[in-house]
Amino acid sequence: MMKLFFVTTLLALMVTFTYAQESIFDTTEIVSPEIHEDGSVTFRLYAPEANTVQVSGDFLASQDGRPMATMQKDDKGLWSYTTDALSPELYSYNLMVDGVKTIDPSHAHTIRDVANVFNYFIIGGDDYTELYKVQQVPHGAVSYVWYTSPVVEKDRRMAVYTPPGYNNDDKDYPVFYLLHGMGGDEEAWLGLGRTAQIMDNLIAQGKAEPMIVVMTNGNVAQEAAAGMGSEGMVQPTFEHPNTMDGLFEESFADVMTYVESHYRVKDEKSNHAIAGLSMGGFHAANISRHYADRFDYIGLFSPALHIDLSGFPEAVAYQDADAKLRQQMQDGYELYWIAIGEKDFDVLLQGVDDYTAKMDGMGMGRSYESKKTEGGHTWVNWRRYLVDFTQRLFR
Amino acid sequence: MMKLFFVTTLLALMVTFTYAQESIFDTTEIVSPEIHEDGSVTFRLYAPEANTVQVSGDFLASQDGRPMATMQKDDKGLWSYTTDALSPELYSYNLMVDGVKTIDPSHAHTIRDVANVFNYFIIGGDDYTELYKVQQVPHGAVSYVWYTSPVVEKDRRMAVYTPPGYNNDDKDYPVFYLLHGMGGDEEAWLGLGRTAQIMDNLIAQGKAEPMIVVMTNGNVAQEAAAGMGSEGMVQPTFEHPNTMDGLFEESFADVMTYVESHYRVKDEKSNHAIAGLSMGGFHAANISRHYADRFDYIGLFSPALHIDLSGFPEAVAYQDADAKLRQQMQDGYELYWIAIGEKDFDVLLQGVDDYTAKMDGMGMGRSYESKKTEGGHTWVNWRRYLVDFTQRLFR
Repeated sequence: MMKLFFVTTLLALMVTFTYAQESIFDTTEIVSPEIHEDGSVTFRLYAPEANTVQVSGDFLASQDGRPMATMQKDDKGLWSYTTDALSPELYSYNLMVDGVKTIDPSHAHTIRDVANVFNYFIIGGDDYTELYKVQQVPHGAVSYVWYTSPVVEKDRRMAVYTPPGYNNDDKDYPVFYLLHGMGGDEEAWLGLGRTAQIMDNLIAQGKAEPMIVVMTNGNVAQEAAAGMGSEGMVQPTFEHPNTMDGLFEESFADVMTYVESHYRVKDEKSNHAIAGLSMGGFHAANISRHYADRFDYIGLFSPALHIDLSGFPEAVAYQDADAKLRQQMQDGYELYWIAIGEKDFDVLLQGVDDYTAKMDGMGMGRSYESKKTEGGHTWVNWRRYLVDFTQRLFR
Repeated sequence: MMKLFFVTTLLALMVTFTYAQESIFDTTEIVSPEIHEDGSVTFRLYAPEANTVQVSGDFLASQDGRPMATMQKDDKGLWSYTTDALSPELYSYNLMVDGVKTIDPSHAHTIRDVANVFNYFIIGGDDYTELYKVQQVPHGAVSYVWYTSPVVEKDRRMAVYTPPGYNNDDKDYPVFYLLHGMGGDEEAWLGLGRTAQIMDNLIAQGKAEPMIVVMTNGNVAQEAAAGMGSEGMVQPTFEHPNTMDGLFEESFADVMTYVESHYRVKDEKSNHAIAGLSMGGFHAANISRHYADRFDYIGLFSPALHIDLSGFPEAVAYQDADAKLRQQMQDGYELYWIAIGEKDFDVLLQGVDDYTAKMDGMGMGRSYESKKTEGGHTWVNWRRYLVDFTQRLFR
C-alpha cells in the first residue's frame, strides 16, 4: 500500500514538469549516442516526419564540404547511423533534421563554443582521453568570480580552478593563467578544454603539481561570457572590440592583483605560468614579455604571433616589444614552449616561424622549445598541449 | 595596410573553427528571439527544407496537448512566428522541426533541466523579473565544490554562492541551504532558479542580507549532476534510488560539516536557513525537524509533504517524526514558511493541508505561515518563492 502510494507520488511529481517531462518521455527509450566496445558509435533519432536526418561531427568524412553522414530511417520512423571504429578522443556532434542543425534530444550533454551548442561524447582508452573524463579521484573546485578592472572600468568575470586540498589546508600554491582564443570566453577552457578534469586527473596521478588555474575573459569589451554579464542575452560572436590591441594585456595587471590578493598564491616567478591558445597565445606572449621577469613558464598553443604590433602605437603593452622580448630572454625562464599543428593556417605557421627566427636572432641561444604536432587549429590539439605543458610546470 | 592585415588575420582565425564557424555563418543574420517593445516576441528559423516548424514554450496556448504554435514560412525558407504581448517572466522554449524538438540555432542561451535542454529569454519590467537578469551590481561568486560524505561513502558535488564582499573581508556570514526537486541536481537552482542573479540583485537593493547559499544534490546515488561525476555521461533522469527514503536527510550532516569547516559561517541557529522545492521541500521539512534546534528559517516551496514516512522504518531521519516536529515547534523558529500554487497537484495540495492540520493539532498555536499563490508546480512560482522567502531571512 505504501509502495503504491509512493509510486503514485513519483508519477505525480514527474507529471509536474509538464513541459520538460513530455520531451523526456518522447525519447526515453532511445539511446544515442551508443558507444560500442570496438569504438564505433550509433546515433539514433525518432523523427517519423522528417525527410532527411544527418549527423554532423568532427569524426566524419566530408560531405558537401561538411563532415557529416546521412542517417537511415526504419519503418517506425527511427533514424540511425553507425560510425566506423573511432580512435580515442572527445568528439562533438550535431544532428541535422531537414537541414536544420539540432542537438540530440536523447543526450543532454552539451557544450557551447562561441555561438554553437553541440553534443559531445568521449571515446576513452588512451593516455590523453582518460584524462578528459571525470574519474574517481579527488576533485578541485571551479569558481566563477568577479574582479574589478580599473583599466577597463568594469567588473569582469573569470573562472578559477583550485586544486584538491586547497580548501583543506593553508598552504600557498603556484598559479597558472590560461587564456582562450578568439570568440571564446572564461568558460571555453572548462568546456571543450576539459581543464578541470585534466587537472584533477594529472594531479591525482602525480603528473602535475597542485596549482591554481585562472581562466580569464580576453574580450575586454565584455563583462563576462554572453548571457552572464549585464549586456544581457546577446548572441556570442567572434568580433569583440579591443581584443587584440593591447588593452587586454594592459588590464591583465588587474587580474593578477585580484588573484594575488584573493588566493593563496606563491609569489615567486618560479611559481607563475601563463599559456593561451591562438589569440590567447598572442596574449600570453605579450603579457609574459610586458610584465617583466614575472613568469617562469610560458606556453603558446597554436599562437597568433603574426599580428603586427606596430599597428598599435598607443598600446602600452606593445611598446618596445622586441626590447622587452630580449630582456625576457636575458632574465631567463624555466620553459618557453611553443606548439602548433602542421596543418594549421599558413599565416599562423609563418607567424611562429618568424617569431622563433627573431628569438634566434637575438643571440640568446635556443632557450625556448618549439614543436610542430599533427593536426590543425583545433581543440584536439589544445587539450593535448594543455596536458603536455601542465606536466612541465613548477617542478 | 595594417588594418587590412588585421582583418585578414581575423578571418583566418575565424575560419579555424571550421566546424563551429559554419553554423554561425548559417544563422548570423537571423535574430531569434526578437523581443519587441510591447513584449511580443518573434521567433525565426531558416529551414527551407522543413515541412513544419513549430515553437513550443510555456507562454503559448496548448495545441494537441502541448503549448505550441505553428511558424509560417516565407518564400526564402525563413520560418517565423510572433507571440502576443507577453507579461514579464523568464520563459523557456524549443523549436520543433518536422516534429523533432530542437534548440534555436540563433540563440546560444540554453538551460538544462533534468534531461531537457531548451532556450530561454527574459521579459523584464516587473519587480520579480528584473531580479532574474544580470544587472550592473556587485556579484557574488558561484563555486562547484566537492565534499566527502561518509554516510553515503562518496565524494559528492555541490554549488555554493558566496555574496559580494565574502572574498574581500573576514566576516562570518549566515548560511541558507537550498534544495532542488525530483530529477534536479546541484545545478537546478542556478539554472532555471536564477539564484545567483536573484541574490546579487536583492543584496544590492538592500532587500536581502549577504548570505552564503548552498545548493546540494539530493540524489545520493549520484556523485554529481549527470556528466559531472565518474558515472560518465549518462542521461539525466527523474528516477534515482534513495532520494526520498531518509538517506539524503541523514547524509545532510556531511554537507553541514563541510560547509561549517570550509566557509566562514555564523554558527547560531538564527543564522541558518533551509528551503527546498517539491521533493526538496519534503527534504527541508525532514532535515529541519531531524537536526534539532538548528534552523531558524524553514521554507517549503510546493512541498511533497504527503509521503508516508511510516513506510521507511529503517530511516533514522524519519523516526519519531511527529515528536520531532512537536519539539521543533516548542524550540521555536523565526519563520516556518509554506507556499504552494492553487493549481498544483491535488496530492500535494492535500499533503500541505494535512501537514498544517497536524501542526495546528499539536496545540502550539499557528506559529507557521502557509499561503496559496497563483499558478502550479512550476519554476515561475519557485523563483518567486525564493525572492519572497530570502527577503525574510536573518533580519
